Amino acid sequence: MSRPVVEFWFEFASTYSYLSVMRIERAAQAAGVDVAWKPFLLGPVFLALGWNDSPFNIYPPKGRYMWRDLERLCAKEGLPFRRPSAFPRNGLLAARVALVGVEDGWVAPFARAVMTANFAEDREIAEPAVIREILVALGLSDAEIMARAQADANKLALRCQTERAAELGLFGAPSFRVGEELFWGNDRLADALEWARRPGALA
Amino acid sequence: MSRPVVEFWFEFASTYSYLSVMRIERAAQAAGVDVAWKPFLLGPVFLALGWNDSPFNIYPPKGRYMWRDLERLCAKEGLPFRRPSAFPRNGLLAARVALVGVEDGWVAPFARAVMTANFAEDREIAEPAVIREILVALGLSDAEIMARAQADANKLALRCQTERAAELGLFGAPSFRVGEELFWGNDRLADALEWARRPGALA
Repeated sequence: MSRPVVEFWFEFASTYSYLSVMRIERAAQAAGVDVAWKPFLLGPVFLALGWNDSPFNIYPPKGRYMWRDLERLCAKEGLPFRRPSAFPRNGLLAARVALVGVEDGWVAPFARAVMTANFAEDREIAEPAVIREILVALGLSDAEIMARAQADANKLALRCQTERAAELGLFGAPSFRVGEELFWGNDRLADALEWARRPGALA
Repeated sequence: MSRPVVEFWFEFASTYSYLSVMRIERAAQAAGVDVAWKPFLLGPVFLALGWNDSPFNIYPPKGRYMWRDLERLCAKEGLPFRRPSAFPRNGLLAARVALVGVEDGWVAPFARAVMTANFAEDREIAEPAVIREILVALGLSDAEIMARAQADANKLALRCQTERAAELGLFGAPSFRVGEELFWGNDRLADALEWARRPGALA
């Protein structure tokens, strides 16, 4: 019998995705659940809802609250946090590289390093040099991976994954899927893992 | 020394306020925290953000998700739930009566009964007959309370409370305040209570 799986849909620009990227492997392991990492882009999903920017920028009271909430949650989880000087950062390159990492099996440490760069070190994750440095620090072949990430087939794969996100009814990140069941937000990680462990959840 | 207090800002039309209204007294009691009930109207707050309807109606993917999420959360909390045939219902009358209940000390059972009518029994809480019936079932003098609720001073008090909500940076319900600290959403109830218990939280 196969282990239960949770799909983890995340975006590198997303503040609450930072929390889930840092927490999910340990939480899933403790629950006996496998994680299927699904990097995607929120931009096109938000555009379809009529937002041409992060809703945290469009609606200032929501934004002010989110930054304070994030600070509190990071303190609670023991995660470093420095408010990025640019928000949202463009996560396109990181998402393309992450797709290669899904294929090769190093997406989890890569995603944690990119999120740390964005939300704890205030580094510009849209810069190829920053992504390369992360790959090198992970002992990976940066030149080869950057070439694969920027190849047409991989670009198309990310576009398809983003379209799939919208088809599945996703409207924000992070989101978790277990079978047909959707869970939205870092606050729902534990519920999603619990759902994956329900008897018959794989049916 | 006085007990810690959490301000509980809620709206009778709000789905996630249903969950918090039903849970807060027991949770706060267990935490040794007092609850200051703050009924207000989301409509004017949403209008200031550019929404002339519930965002769950304006953004269909958010709405579809919310109804499913609510159903799951009610099952988890052991709360009855029937999706209301009208949403959002007009909570103006119930909020005015609730303000009287804050003065007189019966707001908690009244709010639970109104929420149950709206989200478990699919009753029209904007109907004076429904509110009167709830007051009578609580052993209260419905005629006198309805008169006080509809008096100019009480109408003005609710308007001021709603304006205060926006001034405080609230953008949704339920919201919790502890000192200057804001917590948004039913998911943050436990965090708000924990914050209220922090040493020096009253300072």
